[in-house]
Formats: sequence, C-alpha cells, structure tokens
Amino acid sequence: MKALVLEKKMKLVIQDLEIYQKCDSDEVRIAIKNVGICGSDVHYYQYGGIGAYIVKEPMVLGHEASGVIVETGRNVTGLKVGDRVCMEPGIPDSKSSVSRRGLYNLDPSVQFWATPPVQGCLCESVVHPADFTYKITDKISYAEGAMIEPLAIGLQAAEKGHIKPGDVALVTGCGTIGLLTALSALAGGCSRVYISDINSQKLGIASQYNNIIPINASDENLFDRIMNETEGNGVDCIFEASGSPVVFPTLHEYAAPGGVIVLVGIPVDGFGQFSISGIQSKELRLESVFRSAHKYKRAIRLIDSGNIDVKPLISAVYDFDESLAAYEAASDNKSHFIKIQIQLGS
Amino acid sequence: MKALVLEKKMKLVIQDLEIYQKCDSDEVRIAIKNVGICGSDVHYYQYGGIGAYIVKEPMVLGHEASGVIVETGRNVTGLKVGDRVCMEPGIPDSKSSVSRRGLYNLDPSVQFWATPPVQGCLCESVVHPADFTYKITDKISYAEGAMIEPLAIGLQAAEKGHIKPGDVALVTGCGTIGLLTALSALAGGCSRVYISDINSQKLGIASQYNNIIPINASDENLFDRIMNETEGNGVDCIFEASGSPVVFPTLHEYAAPGGVIVLVGIPVDGFGQFSISGIQSKELRLESVFRSAHKYKRAIRLIDSGNIDVKPLISAVYDFDESLAAYEAASDNKSHFIKIQIQLGS
Amino acid sequence: MKALVLEKKMKLVIQDLEIYQKCDSDEVRIAIKNVGICGSDVHYYQYGGIGAYIVKEPMVLGHEASGVIVETGRNVTGLKVGDRVCMEPGIPDSKSSVSRRGLYNLDPSVQFWATPPVQGCLCESVVHPADFTYKITDKISYAEGAMIEPLAIGLQAAEKGHIKPGDVALVTGCGTIGLLTALSALAGGCSRVYISDINSQKLGIASQYNNIIPINASDENLFDRIMNETEGNGVDCIFEASGSPVVFPTLHEYAAPGGVIVLVGIPVDGFGQFSISGIQSKELRLESVFRSAHKYKRAIRLIDSGNIDVKPLISAVYDFDESLAAYEAASDNKSHFIKIQIQLGS
Amino acid sequence: MKALVLEKKMKLVIQDLEIYQKCDSDEVRIAIKNVGICGSDVHYYQYGGIGAYIVKEPMVLGHEASGVIVETGRNVTGLKVGDRVCMEPGIPDSKSSVSRRGLYNLDPSVQFWATPPVQGCLCESVVHPADFTYKITDKISYAEGAMIEPLAIGLQAAEKGHIKPGDVALVTGCGTIGLLTALSALAGGCSRVYISDINSQKLGIASQYNNIIPINASDENLFDRIMNETEGNGVDCIFEASGSPVVFPTLHEYAAPGGVIVLVGIPVDGFGQFSISGIQSKELRLESVFRSAHKYKRAIRLIDSGNIDVKPLISAVYDFDESLAAYEAASDNKSHFIKIQIQLGS
Repeated sequence: MKALVLEKKMKLVIQDLEIYQKCDSDEVRIAIKNVGICGSDVHYYQYGGIGAYIVKEPMVLGHEASGVIVETGRNVTGLKVGDRVCMEPGIPDSKSSVSRRGLYNLDPSVQFWATPPVQGCLCESVVHPADFTYKITDKISYAEGAMIEPLAIGLQAAEKGHIKPGDVALVTGCGTIGLLTALSALAGGCSRVYISDINSQKLGIASQYNNIIPINASDENLFDRIMNETEGNGVDCIFEASGSPVVFPTLHEYAAPGGVIVLVGIPVDGFGQFSISGIQSKELRLESVFRSAHKYKRAIRLIDSGNIDVKPLISAVYDFDESLAAYEAASDNKSHFIKIQIQLGS
Repeated sequence: MKALVLEKKMKLVIQDLEIYQKCDSDEVRIAIKNVGICGSDVHYYQYGGIGAYIVKEPMVLGHEASGVIVETGRNVTGLKVGDRVCMEPGIPDSKSSVSRRGLYNLDPSVQFWATPPVQGCLCESVVHPADFTYKITDKISYAEGAMIEPLAIGLQAAEKGHIKPGDVALVTGCGTIGLLTALSALAGGCSRVYISDINSQKLGIASQYNNIIPINASDENLFDRIMNETEGNGVDCIFEASGSPVVFPTLHEYAAPGGVIVLVGIPVDGFGQFSISGIQSKELRLESVFRSAHKYKRAIRLIDSGNIDVKPLISAVYDFDESLAAYEAASDNKSHFIKIQIQLGS
Repeated sequence: MKALVLEKKMKLVIQDLEIYQKCDSDEVRIAIKNVGICGSDVHYYQYGGIGAYIVKEPMVLGHEASGVIVETGRNVTGLKVGDRVCMEPGIPDSKSSVSRRGLYNLDPSVQFWATPPVQGCLCESVVHPADFTYKITDKISYAEGAMIEPLAIGLQAAEKGHIKPGDVALVTGCGTIGLLTALSALAGGCSRVYISDINSQKLGIASQYNNIIPINASDENLFDRIMNETEGNGVDCIFEASGSPVVFPTLHEYAAPGGVIVLVGIPVDGFGQFSISGIQSKELRLESVFRSAHKYKRAIRLIDSGNIDVKPLISAVYDFDESLAAYEAASDNKSHFIKIQIQLGS
Repeated sequence: MKALVLEKKMKLVIQDLEIYQKCDSDEVRIAIKNVGICGSDVHYYQYGGIGAYIVKEPMVLGHEASGVIVETGRNVTGLKVGDRVCMEPGIPDSKSSVSRRGLYNLDPSVQFWATPPVQGCLCESVVHPADFTYKITDKISYAEGAMIEPLAIGLQAAEKGHIKPGDVALVTGCGTIGLLTALSALAGGCSRVYISDINSQKLGIASQYNNIIPINASDENLFDRIMNETEGNGVDCIFEASGSPVVFPTLHEYAAPGGVIVLVGIPVDGFGQFSISGIQSKELRLESVFRSAHKYKRAIRLIDSGNIDVKPLISAVYDFDESLAAYEAASDNKSHFIKIQIQLGS
C-alpha cells in the first residue's frame, strides 16, 4: 500500500510498502481519509528526530487521522464496517501502573504513531485497537475528524485549568494548539479568552471567533491591556501555548491572585525561567499537559454540538500525491497557515 | 416613597412609606428599575412565612433587582451616579468565620432582602453597600439585570458540578432555577444538557435553546432515554432543581460512575430519600447549593458575551401599579410562566 | 485441597475440593495464611445471599487474606516464591471504560472473591494476578496483612474526605470499618477523630488509640458534645459507618459549613433519609465509597510506618479446623469482637 | 515600653519607646512572651531591607510571637485577660476582593508586623485584633506558641499538596521551614517524608523524628536514593524549601507521574529555572505558598494532639536583654541552629 515515508532528514517519499497487518479480535482496520500535519511531523522531516527519538529506519509519518472502518475483529462490538472514525495515536499498556490510575497518556511504554520506531498513519490503511477508535457523527467531516487529535490536547489543557463558569483566560501563542486551547477554554466555561501573539495573520484567524480576543503583543503592552480589561485583577487562567523562552518569566503578571498557569507549549530546549516570588505572591498554581487522555468523546460531542468549530483552522487540504508540497507549506515559518492536512482516497 | 408591602398573609398593598435611609460612606443609593418575583416571594405572600421566617410586621417584598445609582457614599470609588447596576440581596458580616473562609453566602448573620425582619427592595429606591452592587454593561437591559440574582444560583450549581469540558448533564425540574442551571451548565462546559419535567409548556421554553434537550418524563421513560443517549453510561452531572420527593430516590440511576448530583431544589418538607447503595455502587458525589457567592461578575460577563441568554425566560413584565396582578400571575400553579418581573419608574 | 465451603444458607463445611488452577504467566500461586471474616461473609452464611447475589452453588467463603507465594508465572517480575503478600479480592477488566478512567473498583464485570458465582479464598491456596498481589514488609504479620482489605476501605473513605491537615472528624459507627476509617482519617491528616456508637465495649477498643475519642450516643447528646468540642462549628468531615437509618437524617447537624459527609456504611434496605435543606444551608458535600482502588500500597506503607496500628482490632484468630466456631462468633450480634480471623497452615 | 529596634542596617538597639496604642473594641492587648527570629528579620538586620521593603525609619523587629492577654476591647467575646495566645502577624482588609474570596494572605493592603513601615512585636506589649489572636492550650508552652507562625506556613504548603493518605513526600531544604513542612506533610497524611540538604547537623535534627528520613545530597545521589525507595516511581509530593537555584531544574525527576511540587522556598533573586518538558512528561502540578491563611487553629490542634512536635526545632531561647546576641547567632550561616527565640518578661 501507498505510504508517505520519511527515509531520513529532509527526504520524504511516497512509497509502495508491502505491509500486512492482521486485524486481531479487538482491532479494526481503517481506510485513512484525512491526516493533519503536526509540528512534530515537520520537526522529524526537518531534523530527522526530536530529542531522544531519532529516525534510524524509514518511518511513515502522521498521527492526526480520520478514516472509515473496512474490517472489524471478532470481538469488536461498538464499531462496524462503514463507520466514520478518528483514532487516538498512542496505544498504552492498559496494565501499567499509570494506566491503572487513569493516566494512560503518561505510560512510558506507549506505542505512538510516527514516533520512532513506531510507524505513523499516513498510508492507505491501518489496523488499530477498537478501544482507541471513535465514531464521528454525520455532522463531522473527515477533515474535522482529523482535527480531534490536536483538539484533544486543547481540551486536556482546559480541563487542567479547572475553569469556573465565567472565568476569563489568556492564551499565549496563536498557533494550532493555542487556538484549539482557546476554543476549548471558551467551550469549557470561560466568558472570554484573550490570545496573544506577534503574528497578525494568525491573530486574524482568532478574530473570526466570538469572545476570542486577539492581542498583538508587538503592537501594544500585553500587561496593560489585560489589566485594563480585568479591572486590574488579571485573568483567572493562563494557557501558555507559545513555548517561547521570553514568555515564561512574566506569565505570573497577567494572572489574578489564586489563578492558574497551564503549560501547554514545549520550549525548544525544554527549559523555562519563572519568577518564583511572583508566582508565590499570588499563590498561583501551575498545571502541565502531555498529549491527552479521555478526551476524544468529549471533542466529538463539542464539535457535534457546535460548541467548538474547528473548520476555520483548517487552512489547506492537499491530495496525498501532493504530500511533499504539503510538508513544504507546513515547514514555511513565514506562512500564516494554521493546520495543513493531507487527504487520501477522496 | 412607594413600596409593595406584604401586610400579612395574602394581603399585599402598594404603600407610601416614610423611609429615610442615610447613604453611608461605603454605600450607594439605587433607584430601582426591575424586580423579579421569586418563589420565596410568592410563598411569603401565600403563607405569611417560610419555615422559621414569619412575617410579623409589614414587609416590603422583592430581592431580585436592577436599578440605577442616584447617590454614592464618600468612599465609593468603583461606581458613580448614573451607573446601571444589579445588587446581591444578602449582606453578610465580612468578619464572620464563614465569610473569612470565602463562604459569605453561608453567614448566619446575613441581612437578606425580604426575609423577615429585613425589608425587601420592591420600592422606589434602596441604599446598599457598594461592595455588593455591580455595574451591568450597556448590552444588558434592566430586565436582564434583575435576572442575575437567580442566574447566580444556577452558576453556583454549575461551579459545584466541577464540569469538565464536554460533560453531559441532566437537570431535573424545568422552572426558573432549573432553566438557569441548565444555561449555566451549558455555558460552564457541558456539550449538551437534558432537562426533564412533566410541564410541556415549560419544556417548550427549554427547547428554544441549542443543546438544551427537553424530556417530558410523563411521556417517556427518563432512564431509558438517558441511557440511550449516553451509550449506557449515564450523565456526568445531575442538577436536581425540582425539589420533588419522587425524584430523589432514583437520581443515582441517571448518573455515570464517578458522577455528581448537585442538589439545587429545596423540597417543601426539607427531606429527601436517597438510594445510598445506589449512590455508593457508582461512588457518586453529591454537592449542595445555598444561594450564591462570588457569582455576580461571572453572570454579568456571561450575559454580556452572549454565552447565556436569559431573555426567553422573562415571561412578563408588569408595571409597578399592577404589582398585585403580577403576584396573582406568579401564584398561579397552572401557568407556564417562567419569570415574572415588576418594573418601576419606566 | 481443603476449603471452607458454604453449601447453602447456614450450612458451612470444611471440604476437600478437587481444584486445579493453572498459574498463568502473569499470575502467582499463594498459600493462604490468614483470612478475616467480613460482615458480607456472615451475611452469606446467615441468609444465603446479599441482594441480587444468591448462593446457588456451593461457594468457598473469604476475601480478606494474606499468604505466601509458592509459585510465580513466567512474566512475573516483582514477586518471587517466599514473598509474604496480601491480595486485592476483586479482579477488574483492565480495559473496561471505568477501569480506563482509574476507577477499577466500579467495574461491573469485576470478579470478586466470595461473591456468587466467584469462589472465595478460604482454602489452602489460590492463583491470583500478580498485579493485584502486594508484598507486605517484615514488620507486618500475616494477621495484619489480612486486615489490609478492610483498611483499604477506610483509606478510600479518608481520601474521599479530602482531609486538610488539622481537620476534626466524626465517625458514626464503631464496627471494624468505622474503626479503620477513624484510623485512616487520623493518619490522613485529622488532628482528632470522634467516633460514636451505642456499644460501649466497641467504643472501649476505640479509646485505646490516641486522638480517637469515643462517644456513647446513648449516654450523652452527640450534637451538644460535638458543638462543645468544636467551638460551635461542627466537624470538618463526617464518616458515616453505621448504615443505621436513624443516623442519616441528622448527619448534617454535626458538620461545619462547607464540610463533607462520606457515606461508608450500607443500610440494610439500601435507603437513607437526608435533610436536604439542612445539607444545603451549610453547602455540605457528600461522598461515597464502594470497596477501594489504589489503596493497598498506601495501607502497607501506613502500617509499616506505624502511622496505623490495626493489631488492637484483631479480636480473635481461629485455626482453620475451628472455622465454624469462628463464624458462630462472628455471627453473634451481642459480641464485642471487632475482627475475627481464621488462620491456615500455621 | 522596651522594644528591640532596628535603627538601620546592622544597627539593632533595645530602646524605651513612648508608644501608646489604644485597645479598640474588637482588639486585645497582649503582653509578649516569646518571639522567634525569622530569616526575614535577619535579612532586615543585615541588609536594611528586603526587595522593595526598605527600613527608612527605626522599626521594631519580630513577627513570630506568643503572649498573654492583659486587656480586651468592649466587643471581644472569645478571649479574656489571662488567656495564653499566639497571633497572626498580618492584618488584612477583610473587605478586599481577595479577602472576600478567603485568600486573605494575598491581600496587598495587609499590615504585616516588621515589614516597613509597620512595626513588629518584639516589645513588651502589642494591641492586636481579637480575630487574629488565638488561644493556645495548656499543653502548649509560650515557646511552642511562638512556633505557630512558621508552622502555619508548613501547613499551608501541606494543604496545597493535596496529600492523599499514605503518600510519600520529599522536602528539599532542611531549615526551619523545610522541617516544619516535613512535619506538616507527615501529620497531613504522608506515610514518610524524605528531607534533603547538605548540612548534616540540620539533617541530624530531622533524624530525631519517626518517618522523617534525612538524605545528605552531598553524600549520596538523591535521585538514585528516591527511586530505590519508591520502586522507581518517585514521590507523590515534593516540597521545595531550599530556595536554591540549583535545585529547581531537576525537581521533576524525583516526582511520580501526576505528582505535585509545592514551591515554599524563595530564591534570593526571585527566579528559578524549570525543565518544562520534564514537568510536562509527568503532567506534574506546581503549587505555591505565600505566608498562610486559616492555619492557626489547625496548628494549635496538631501541636496539642501531639501529631506535631515542634520542641526539637527550638534550638535556643535568649532573654530579651540578650537580643543582640540572639540576632548574632541567628545571622551565623555556619550555625546548625534551627529556630532561635527571644523571651520577654519571664
């Protein structure tokens, strides 16, 4: 079958692979429809690895996917051939100590698509555990279905914020994850969400949404703006989605006393400098997010109900044959694209 | 000044009272605009008391109010003459042990409008602490402003539910508080909210809202419906807003394992029978609500942002001269009115 | 092998069973040492069933056990032959939706010892999943090891209480579970724990512990005592461990505003009457407990450290041959025994 | 009256001040007994200021105090002359927005003893609000009473940890606050608490306590030790009490997945470097502590019950006449003293 394979750094090819994966009793086979390109995919493409994860053997890319079920294992009951679905990309060991506590996203033995040496899903079909495959409703397109993986991260962040109805939030960083976190925070109880960045085009996307208020931090003083709009209290919840080292040391300034900072963005070098005394003087809480757990059904319900609309974030959809062009577009730092997807078998 | 006075059970008169209340340094004087009629007002009117609170002296009714500031005390800084406002009806002792813990709604020494012997606000003007007086935005009408008191109770309930983004909820009871709780739950993160009652007209009001799904429990089996719509799991959050003794013993059945039941409605005799073993077998949590605290600014933000629309719940607005007719209408059990208000000085 | 078998209601026999259970790769074989008699065992003995669980076929009793490992499956790494252990009696499906959320105690498909049709552990040896088998330290005797199952329930209750350091608690009901809950609450952060009952001999056991304060509710007014000892505030946490229908309607009276009631005891008919208005006027939270999850390692650490001493609660230990006498003693309502155990192969 | 006055940096004198403070209706006058020397007192002595707080006028030092009531205001009901007491050093505005939420320790308008320009309490008597004055029991000495202020900080930290019964904790930093946090964590539900430092004499004090386990990080590898003692999981709660910049970047390594780091220590320059990716990969939560709120009664109960014993931490008690010697001792970095106190009128 056809697959988009990263042979090595900067060498991406569409190949015809001889793969046969048996569909076990608790598994389903899914014909892939849409696959989003994630920052991690681009990073593997550009650098051949992320931290300790090095691409040593050719690896199929892609982990944000939707598709249609074409085969079901003997014991599968909740899914049937023809069901339109999306999939969690990480398969944990359900008996590990963290999985047993409900934190399956933290399982160190997880098998996660397109994380070496695990193959990704940018290919014609995959076999996947039924337990990690979720039916999408008729209202949800395949393109939207492939947005559920990153939306789940936004929802993970929003849940960690313990939002109270009517809270005011600030998201720093207006990329895909920042925008999906803003949408999640709004759907999760905030009355309004400020989102800051220095890219005016991305902020323009944010401005399409009611109650998401873009702030260009290169045009105006973010602190003054936030204080003016919150009677000098600061916001209840901050979601850091930029990963930028210049953002961390002043984050506490925007927060109301007793507020929370949720760390979503990952700095390139992994580290960040915080004002501990600033955090302490307001007794702030910091939460952190690693991928997501238990969020797919929530994401599907929130898209289906219209509470979250991801469509404005899908900037472009390329045909599978144009995958290299899609990756080039996704690699362009100057672009104002939010999410780029590749579609198969359309 | 003119006031609506309950002289005794079933005897309600508009009187010209000789009241002079000095506006102290931390207080404001407010010309009253709209006042909603609450079930407690009706109960005082019909029975001359509620439990231990007996109307022994003539008492001005009303505690759900909006108005405009006509005088400000010397130390008041955040409010000025002409500001359109709504008011918290209960003034706690800020130094009591519960107030100090942030639970000012539980202060036993609270002075609460229209709770004997404290006078209510259905009169031309009131003097009130600036701290418990809140500016409403231009987008919010006086009628909506007078809905903030009951909405605050809905928000108190929603906050106690610790809603996670995408939760599914059930509200039992489609009266004013049930509907405001449903709106609060939806704005507070639920993807959809079921609301059950046996009054099809009230359920009809609920059906005007997206993602609030009315269920007439006399027409269909509530348990079957809930289970069908939740893949057999039950709902994450139940908000009990009927106060009906027949509802309590089966509430646990509609809940998902680990879910929550928030007790909002107050049974007439104060008591309710629960299935303790049913609650235990799912390890449900029960929360309870008493009036509200810290919710006015949240309510104002959520109405202002459009996340909550209370207008469909304002069934009728009577002029002050027609106050008795308003109380008659509010006392009619067979009516399908949700909230009835009285407006002054229009 | 020898086993204690309940043939039918009131017919208990020691039998020589032909059982061969293979020890699978993830399992261990355990020679049983001590087994506690639980109220549920006695109930099966006396009534032949509990609710929907009817003893239709002869059933080995017992689920509170310690033992020593005599064989380990091929994949077992953390345990070896000779290890002294205790075991969780319920084996959930680790892939069920509740298990995946970390709530494995709520899994409806759980296989739980001595719950028809699942056999219990009062026999010479059992085969058990290594994941649910826990090494006890040298400081912990087999008798103490067999107390960990009921202690885990006390810890489940204490954890649900969200105890803050220095809280004051009340436990209603001074049976085994009430006492273990009191010990858990104390080890879990309470400064002192009141425990009420009308059985002065059981309260005498409680009085052996520092900071557990027995109150005989037939000798003095519980409400007055609690208010006197808490400056009129009431206690922060109430643990209901009596299951008595007369206790539920007044529980709220003993609680401080914003406090919690944890429902541990199970009423015979399953139901309880609460004062909803009483609960609401203090905005109390109610939590509930079903068996336990994630508590064995905690229990072992707390016994090992000396923070919890279960020895005074082990009232009598019978040899296996005297099992019927043990059950007769455990069935005697008038007895002041707390926990009765049976020991094998001593 | 006599007072210990810091005239300027490094100039400390016992003076006879002409102070007359009226005891208002809600206040009490307290004859001071014991006063602990805090790191902040030493810092004012050595540097003449802390951050923005500069000693411009002579200032009485001291804020950790016990005493005896010698006069009560007209409205004071809970306290009487002769009562032995300890006092919260910060008086907030009970009507500020943070106080109203229960977070009175975060009130920016707080009047805090010995924080310029507010005078401290190292003098013969002080007048104080009855609301912030707490009776100590007969079992608690004046020296122990003066330990309640720093113990309250330890309890604030422990409460922020949301300790579950049987948790394992690590405290980094074995000074007064580190030790009091360790005691609070243990009394608050931990089964055992590791405490690390490089000062073996201070660790020796820690070793006097059951279940507090000192680790000298200069003698052994802290990470290896913690992992060995926790089956490779790490600890549930980390309390950072060193304020040392070298500690922050590796804190996440000692934590179990889903664990918490409570920031208690304040770095000299206010800043700390964290591994954000390390924190995220375990989804750690960070909490922070600023002084304390609502902890005095808890501290008194926990000392009274014997759950917390602060006596081993009181290294020396100087007479008031020897106050300068006391400050010299407290300023000696090489000393292994934990808490030094000054006593008046003995």
